[in-house]
This record gives sequence, C-alpha cells and structure tokens, in this order.
Amino acid sequence: MAEKAGSEKKQRAIVLLSGGLDSATVFAVAYQEGYQIVALSFDYGQRHVRELEAARAIAQGWGVQHHAIVNLDLRAFGGSALTDNIEVPKGRSDKEIGEGIPVTYVPARNTIFLSHALALAEVEGARDIFIGVNALDYSGYPDCRPEYISAFQTMANLATKACIEETPGLLIRSPLQDFTKAKIVELGTHLGVDFANTLSCYDPPGGRGDFSHCGICDACQLRRKGFEEASIHDPTRYKN
Amino acid sequence: MAEKAGSEKKQRAIVLLSGGLDSATVFAVAYQEGYQIVALSFDYGQRHVRELEAARAIAQGWGVQHHAIVNLDLRAFGGSALTDNIEVPKGRSDKEIGEGIPVTYVPARNTIFLSHALALAEVEGARDIFIGVNALDYSGYPDCRPEYISAFQTMANLATKACIEETPGLLIRSPLQDFTKAKIVELGTHLGVDFANTLSCYDPPGGRGDFSHCGICDACQLRRKGFEEASIHDPTRYKN
Repeated sequence: MAEKAGSEKKQRAIVLLSGGLDSATVFAVAYQEGYQIVALSFDYGQRHVRELEAARAIAQGWGVQHHAIVNLDLRAFGGSALTDNIEVPKGRSDKEIGEGIPVTYVPARNTIFLSHALALAEVEGARDIFIGVNALDYSGYPDCRPEYISAFQTMANLATKACIEETPGLLIRSPLQDFTKAKIVELGTHLGVDFANTLSCYDPPGGRGDFSHCGICDACQLRRKGFEEASIHDPTRYKN
Repeated sequence: MAEKAGSEKKQRAIVLLSGGLDSATVFAVAYQEGYQIVALSFDYGQRHVRELEAARAIAQGWGVQHHAIVNLDLRAFGGSALTDNIEVPKGRSDKEIGEGIPVTYVPARNTIFLSHALALAEVEGARDIFIGVNALDYSGYPDCRPEYISAFQTMANLATKACIEETPGLLIRSPLQDFTKAKIVELGTHLGVDFANTLSCYDPPGGRGDFSHCGICDACQLRRKGFEEASIHDPTRYKN
C-alpha cells in the first residue's frame, strides 16, 4: 500500500496487533486517520506462533517500520486454555459461546498488554493507543468492556511522566467497541485490510506460515458468522 | 523465622518484592497480618541481577514457598537509566533528588508490575496485592502516588474474572504510602526484617551475592539518611 504524503510530521500511535481480524481492522483505522504507527505484539507462550506470523504479515503489508514484539512470561501463571494445558472448546453453540467467561480467557491479559503499550507510548511520544476490543468479546471477557477501557485510561493518565508533563494526555482508542463481527468485516474490507493475512483460530490446523482455520472453535465460529452476515467472502481456508 | 500457626486456612496475598528495603518491609507487614504470601519479582533487564538475589534472600528468609520471578522485556523500550545506557546520577543534593522525575524512572514500570500481580492474584485466588510505594518515591515517580494506586485498583476491579465473580474485589495495599524512609526502617526493624539482605543501590559496586552499596546514588543517599534519622544501624557496607 502506498505511503501517505506528509509523513514527516505524523503523530505517533501504538496499535496492539494480535494477528486477528479485529486488530487488523483497528490498524487500518489508525492508518486511515494518518498516524505514524508503532505496532506492538506479544509472544506470550501462545500455543501457536502463527498469531505472531499473521501480525508480522499485517504490519509488513502496511509498510510499518517499527513493530515491537515483546516476550511475555504468562505461562508461569497458567489458568487459560490459550497458555495452559486446558483444551480449547470446539463446536459450541451460539448460546454457549455467549455465556459466561470462556476458558480461553487469559488472566489480566489486556491489562498486561495495555501496560506495555503505555510504556511504549511514553518512550515513543505517542498519545494514542489503539486496541481492537469489541461488543462480541465484551460478552465474555471482562477486560474488553468499555468501562474497563475507560478505567485503564484514567489510571494511565496518572501513571506516566508524559501524561503528567504533557497535555492532552493518553487516549485508549477502541474504535470497534460497539461493532459486531459483521460490521468489523465490512469496515476492514472498506479500509483495504487483507483478511487472508489474519488468524482468528484458537487451534489452527496448519503448519508455519499457514493461516488456515479449524472452523469449529469459538473464534472460528464468530469469524465465519461475521463474514456470512456481512455477505463478504472470507479468504481463509477452514478445515471443518 | 518461625511459621505461623493455622497456615492451612490462610488467605493468600501477592507481594511485589524488588529486593529493596521498602518491599522487604511491606513483605513483613503482609506476613505479620497472617497472609500466605506469594512473592512476585521481575527480571527486567536491570543492570544488576543482585536486586533479584536480594529478593530471593528475603523470600527465603521468611520461608516463602512460592516466589514467582517473571522475565520482562523492558529493555526493548529503553528510556531509563535502570534499563538503558543512561548514566545513573551520583552525589546529587537533597534538593536535586527531590525535584522532578529522575532518569532512573522506568516507563510505566509499576503499571506493568501491578498488571502481572493482577494476573497472579487471579490465578492464585489472592485478594490483596502489596506494593512498597511510599511518600519519598512519590515526589519523583508518578506511579507511586496514592491517586495512581487508587486508579489502578478501580481498573483492576473491572479487569478480571475473579473481581467480577467474587466480592470483596481486589485491593492494592500500599501500607508505606505515607512513610518516610526513617519510618520504614523503624517499622521493618520492629517486624524483624533482615536489612542485610536488602539492596537499594542503583549501581552496586560488589559482585554476585554481595549486597554492598555505592553510597552516592540517589537511592543510597535516601537509604543512608533513613537509617540515620531512625538512629538504627544499617547493616550494609557502603563503598563511599
């Protein structure tokens, strides 16, 4: 994709980039708003490093020059199907997916992610941190809800040298907060996101560099439904 | 030190343990209140791993069974004399030490530390997180002030599964908040802290397992003054 003009005076933003379709779309929103983007991804002992491969592919696709990848030690804590030896649930109904907090919840994950983003924002002189939380996540994960994001922003503006010495303070931007998956797919498509480079699956069946999906974990079901409802073709391959 | 009776039903608490005299004293406060303590320390690319050695010595001294040491990647961000190639200031006056935010400030450090403590608290079923921030730190570091700690607690209670499903929610305990260094030394002495196992120095002169102090960095000057004002003997050795 072509570089925007006038890049020498762009304001910087941190974008949390997981490799999924939400963060890929949020990235495109920040790009479209004209920010110079510093991408931030985490290697936190995910079962599958392909999430990170997808994040790299997305960042490279948009010509990002600074993509920080931080190693996190979440395995030491355990407690989640995504970092521990708990089985990823498959073939659950819409009702089951919508209820309660799933075992794929990682303890305090977004708080840890946003805390690192806060450090990076201070070092980079960025005012905005973009995160792809949305209405669907919100049903199950406490740290995706708008009141959580708002409380994090309040805390962040008391936490750092930059926020005390400069105005305006730090903003946690969650532009997809009220979006369904279908609306995210529509927006991403409109902004030129290459969804073939995104990985939503909790248990991807392929090998390295293969972004195909199992099709039956909660994340795959939500993704599939989103593309169907948006009547947009999903370029990924589903095993089931 | 002797084990307290009735340990089978103790409530758990997370104690952030840096190896300095503040966190050593906070540890003793939590111990005295009867908690089963899970100690949490970080290896974050400090110039000197002796901080961690001191933390281990303190935890072992109290017979802690679970001491989590998490590797953090803060070097990737830079921006501090404690993690970057910025020189640690020496021989500064009291006035200089009291003014502004020092270069030893690590961007968003307490936010990152507390975020990990939050994850560990959720996994361990702990309600209390103890941190040794205090009035002296507070003058220079934004993330040591009471309004910051309070905002973190508000955010934390919206962030996790445990806080939503259970009451009472999470408490961030900073019992030294209004203490001078002298008062901390007095309290720690009263509670049986072995200050020979603590390391305050930003640039310790000795080798591995040696907890001697340079005597002239900001942290050494504050420590020394604290012991002097409390009229208590400091068991450490000062090079200068």
